[in-house]
Amino acid sequence: MGEVLIVGLLSASDRAARGVYEDEGIPALKDWLGKAVTAPRIRYEERLIPDEQAVIEAALVDLVDVRGCHLVLTTGGTGPARRDVTPEATLAVADKVMPGFGEQMRAVSLKYVPTAILSRQVAVVRKQALIINLPGQPKAIKETLDGVFAAVPYCVDLIGGPYIETDEALVKAFRPKSALRPKPA
Amino acid sequence: MGEVLIVGLLSASDRAARGVYEDEGIPALKDWLGKAVTAPRIRYEERLIPDEQAVIEAALVDLVDVRGCHLVLTTGGTGPARRDVTPEATLAVADKVMPGFGEQMRAVSLKYVPTAILSRQVAVVRKQALIINLPGQPKAIKETLDGVFAAVPYCVDLIGGPYIETDEALVKAFRPKSALRPKPA
Amino acid sequence: MGEVLIVGLLSASDRAARGVYEDEGIPALKDWLGKAVTAPRIRYEERLIPDEQAVIEAALVDLVDVRGCHLVLTTGGTGPARRDVTPEATLAVADKVMPGFGEQMRAVSLKYVPTAILSRQVAVVRKQALIINLPGQPKAIKETLDGVFAAVPYCVDLIGGPYIETDEALVKAFRPKSALRPKPA
Repeated sequence: MGEVLIVGLLSASDRAARGVYEDEGIPALKDWLGKAVTAPRIRYEERLIPDEQAVIEAALVDLVDVRGCHLVLTTGGTGPARRDVTPEATLAVADKVMPGFGEQMRAVSLKYVPTAILSRQVAVVRKQALIINLPGQPKAIKETLDGVFAAVPYCVDLIGGPYIETDEALVKAFRPKSALRPKPA
Repeated sequence: MGEVLIVGLLSASDRAARGVYEDEGIPALKDWLGKAVTAPRIRYEERLIPDEQAVIEAALVDLVDVRGCHLVLTTGGTGPARRDVTPEATLAVADKVMPGFGEQMRAVSLKYVPTAILSRQVAVVRKQALIINLPGQPKAIKETLDGVFAAVPYCVDLIGGPYIETDEALVKAFRPKSALRPKPA
Repeated sequence: MGEVLIVGLLSASDRAARGVYEDEGIPALKDWLGKAVTAPRIRYEERLIPDEQAVIEAALVDLVDVRGCHLVLTTGGTGPARRDVTPEATLAVADKVMPGFGEQMRAVSLKYVPTAILSRQVAVVRKQALIINLPGQPKAIKETLDGVFAAVPYCVDLIGGPYIETDEALVKAFRPKSALRPKPA
């Protein structure tokens, strides 16, 4: 009942952080989650910061260790350019690396563009939180979340977070039978 | 003739190691290998241990360095939960990381369940041994070995182990022509 | 007009470096690039060296830092055998790891041979250069470049190199619209 899913949304972008243009990553993430996650209620913690590895690391640690996030989605900073350091910051704060997410996100994006190979997205577990790097473009964010979110609720179960339910018309959360909660009558 | 394939089987499971339930991983591995590998004769070295990284590392080092295993298959401990540390232990004893096995095992398992993304399985070479992390469930063990074992015999050739032959009805070992031994007439 | 693409070609092979047999890797790389890259003009820097990690690292650093290569393609030394150390040398000189290339190269090769799993190829960015490990066999070199080169020109754009154009009948370079240069009339 009183259960809340605490979700950190972190956009790494030099230009958006300086106000040169409007961040499109965090709105795209909220739009997708607002439609796909039906329970529990979500509380968002948002951060719009420059592409500085130390700043990103500090924000991730704060979101997980202080704000208590169960899930952190980052957007931006995963390409090959010099200022793209989100994966390095994410790996630096990891307890466990989850290689399947990066592999699958690239496999999904490859159906749309050959340059998906260039994305260096990773996902990791830190304490009670799953942290996933997503692309910067709203269209690619949607394609990627469509492709991997089915596995997120069970992962959050396994690391001790709340039981996430989804709109099955958009994405069907998958759990082994032994991990399914009975639906309320 | 006198050639023997020494195979280490390591099950990492707190509950099975305490006797809370019966380990199903090692029997599933032996069942699969007993059917699929037709030559040479296999000698098994079995270990049932808790999910402690240092204990798993020590067992892997013993299996490879002291017992002389050519192939070590682990089962269990590859998920995202706090006690899942088999991949970390495996990487800690690696001479070489073999990323293709983890990628392909997840790709194979994804055909069955979307949560295959959550598996953190790795494979590595240590000295004369190929070490591969497998899932904990017997069904997933079979699916995974069906999907990747074709490459194992040639890998064992390349790191100096015995020439493995398989029942081609179950899995066809692949070698380049230059590495094939003539069949006895 | 005066733009030049500086490409390092490094073959790691104990036997070829000793002259025991003729290196086939570098000629296969030059053949493929000569056909596929239509602009700008390419200047090659070639190295034929033994499978020694320190020697490979030093050659990569020289090619990138001193010779100014924008792209370095290595051939050989990516298998599981003791002397196969090209991926380790490549990772040792990396500023950024590009995991999508290794994943995709193995996925492409798996269509041809199950032992593609055994390839440990990686790609990295060091300064202004993209470094990609390729297989040793000419046939596998061609299959792999056919499968991943579409993403190389845009990657080289992003790390500050010259604008690469390709023969679209062989491989179509992919760039987002915002990164496309108008074709000369």
